[in-house]
Amino acid sequence: MAKSKPAKPSRSAKPADLSAPQPYVVIIAGGKGERFWPQSRAARPKHLLPVVGETSLLAQTLERVRGVAPAKNTFVITSAVQAREVARVCRGLIPAANIVAEPAGRDTAAAVGLAAALVGARDPRGVFAVLPADHVIHDTAAYQSDLRAAFAAAGAADVMVTIGIAPTEPATGFGYIQRGGEWGRVGAGKVAKTVYEVKRFVEKPKADVAAEYLKSGDYVWNAGMFVWSVPVVEAAFAAHAPELDAGLAKIRAALKKKQALAAVLKKVYPTLVKISVDYALLEKSTNVVVVPSSFDWDDVGAWPAVAKHFAADAAGNVGRGEVIVEQGGGNLVFSEGGHLVTLLGVDGLVVVHTKDATLVMPKARAQDIKALLAKVALRKDAAKLL
Amino acid sequence: MAKSKPAKPSRSAKPADLSAPQPYVVIIAGGKGERFWPQSRAARPKHLLPVVGETSLLAQTLERVRGVAPAKNTFVITSAVQAREVARVCRGLIPAANIVAEPAGRDTAAAVGLAAALVGARDPRGVFAVLPADHVIHDTAAYQSDLRAAFAAAGAADVMVTIGIAPTEPATGFGYIQRGGEWGRVGAGKVAKTVYEVKRFVEKPKADVAAEYLKSGDYVWNAGMFVWSVPVVEAAFAAHAPELDAGLAKIRAALKKKQALAAVLKKVYPTLVKISVDYALLEKSTNVVVVPSSFDWDDVGAWPAVAKHFAADAAGNVGRGEVIVEQGGGNLVFSEGGHLVTLLGVDGLVVVHTKDATLVMPKARAQDIKALLAKVALRKDAAKLL
Repeated sequence: MAKSKPAKPSRSAKPADLSAPQPYVVIIAGGKGERFWPQSRAARPKHLLPVVGETSLLAQTLERVRGVAPAKNTFVITSAVQAREVARVCRGLIPAANIVAEPAGRDTAAAVGLAAALVGARDPRGVFAVLPADHVIHDTAAYQSDLRAAFAAAGAADVMVTIGIAPTEPATGFGYIQRGGEWGRVGAGKVAKTVYEVKRFVEKPKADVAAEYLKSGDYVWNAGMFVWSVPVVEAAFAAHAPELDAGLAKIRAALKKKQALAAVLKKVYPTLVKISVDYALLEKSTNVVVVPSSFDWDDVGAWPAVAKHFAADAAGNVGRGEVIVEQGGGNLVFSEGGHLVTLLGVDGLVVVHTKDATLVMPKARAQDIKALLAKVALRKDAAKLL
Repeated sequence: MAKSKPAKPSRSAKPADLSAPQPYVVIIAGGKGERFWPQSRAARPKHLLPVVGETSLLAQTLERVRGVAPAKNTFVITSAVQAREVARVCRGLIPAANIVAEPAGRDTAAAVGLAAALVGARDPRGVFAVLPADHVIHDTAAYQSDLRAAFAAAGAADVMVTIGIAPTEPATGFGYIQRGGEWGRVGAGKVAKTVYEVKRFVEKPKADVAAEYLKSGDYVWNAGMFVWSVPVVEAAFAAHAPELDAGLAKIRAALKKKQALAAVLKKVYPTLVKISVDYALLEKSTNVVVVPSSFDWDDVGAWPAVAKHFAADAAGNVGRGEVIVEQGGGNLVFSEGGHLVTLLGVDGLVVVHTKDATLVMPKARAQDIKALLAKVALRKDAAKLL
């Protein structure tokens, strides 16, 4: 009997390797965004605002990962106070059940543990990305290409994959990742990417140190973008954060038994150790690799950073809403609700008008907004205004 | 039969000299007040705003002359566009029939002619004051004393009495009056006042000339405050402005025949020569005298002038409405409608928030507001905003 020829692989629209795990994405949408006051409020922080573009930064993030992970595999972890507005933004983009509200903010390690539990309940070997909700990225194709490379690396080996942002200035506001040697290559042809070992994570540096980092070419910014498998994350928690892992185990157990998540979160979550995932896991792990980014990136840290995402007039003024600037330059003016904001003879100011509050400050003073908000907090109507 | 003793003069509340003419006051409330935009609008100029104090400057002016002239003898001449709001402000302060709207602005000579016609219809020998509606005067007692002195002079002789403001700085924004020798004294005891002849009226001077005026002690500011009798004003029109007088004669005739004033004004007023009373009458007359003022006075020419009428915080900030200034000084911030206006790290700004428009400018640029308003005028909704 003649041996039958093996079937020729079909060129179907489905993924070639049906056994490869489907990617998951967990977006962490919990920031406070005080720096965008008065547009941002406790229940409406930066990622829920259209500070750049026509939709909120969270919606933009959800749109951007579409094509990498299906909507049903995309989760959003947010805070209780923001849950309602997050649900509104996510409507039609991901299933409502994929929005999980933290009963209390416990920093990023707990959020990553919760993310791993959510993905693990669907697929115990699932590979998932943890991504911030409040960054601005215009080059979606390059972003998706880098993200796919990170998924490929995390799917191929037991590594914690970071996406490191190519630094454009000696910033002192970000943590840095020092690259080591080449770890491997993922993808092929035009989308082939080199993945590097990580030598170390470093805290926000001083200006002179940041300048050295930039000069060396060995450092990238840590933007809080990670891709890894459920087992790798669980192993890291067990090895480096056993106390936190014990709490997370209760959440995993509840999800396994299909218990109501909200109830167990309410009980367990506030007891979790409050620590960043960088401190808790990444800085202590030796299996961390980095995919250098090829996309534009901006965390839009405060009002002045918004300006560069909009077309300015000849004098460098950026206006949004009903705005007139006469004899002044370099101003950023946002006005909501059809209210006319006029500037005469001023330069370099940020002026933001909302329905119930207006802010006027020099761009150079944007970092001091907390001192102003401390005064707003003393008002009887502070709860409404903050 | 014993001769009966003459009755002892009674100390009644009525004026001692019942034959003396009752004083009249005509308040000219027609200014545009662009300099207080966005609070001021075409239909709500400076004198209709509470820029200083709790009531509008017009209401403050009406309160201030109460005690010098009775309400029934107090008129307000305003413009058609402001008539409705003026009527609202004057309600309860003067009879509605005493508010007269100019169908078109024809400068102050026409307004004085209309004032003389209104008073003359009541009393052909009446003595009346013409007063601006938009000045700030706190010392009402001194003001009334000076005004009574001016009435006494105008009642005693055929003179045009000006009230000259004691200059406090070498201002280049006002016309000046050069005093001549002593013309006479009015009143007695504590309220006795010396009235001076007027040598000449001078236009707004240059800075060095203004400094000389101030140094000489011979000059006072022309604040547009005049007291005179109907016959004196009519004679001046006949002698120095015959063309204008011919038009005014039609108004006088209509009033005499008790014809509807609005109809004749609509027909005649727009045809009147547009000229200031200073040019048309005062500079050409030789019977002008001046009562030097003893009261505080401020014409509050623009936003920065408002600040000194309010208590400032330790850093020199003046706030009205819901205002927070953090790390900044010398700012003037007005906010309407409970809206919170916050300033961080800025100095010397004027920030004015109203329901539909906000202005941000340095105090030093307040004189340039017309350039900004020219841009506002290009908007589709300019009619609502200006």
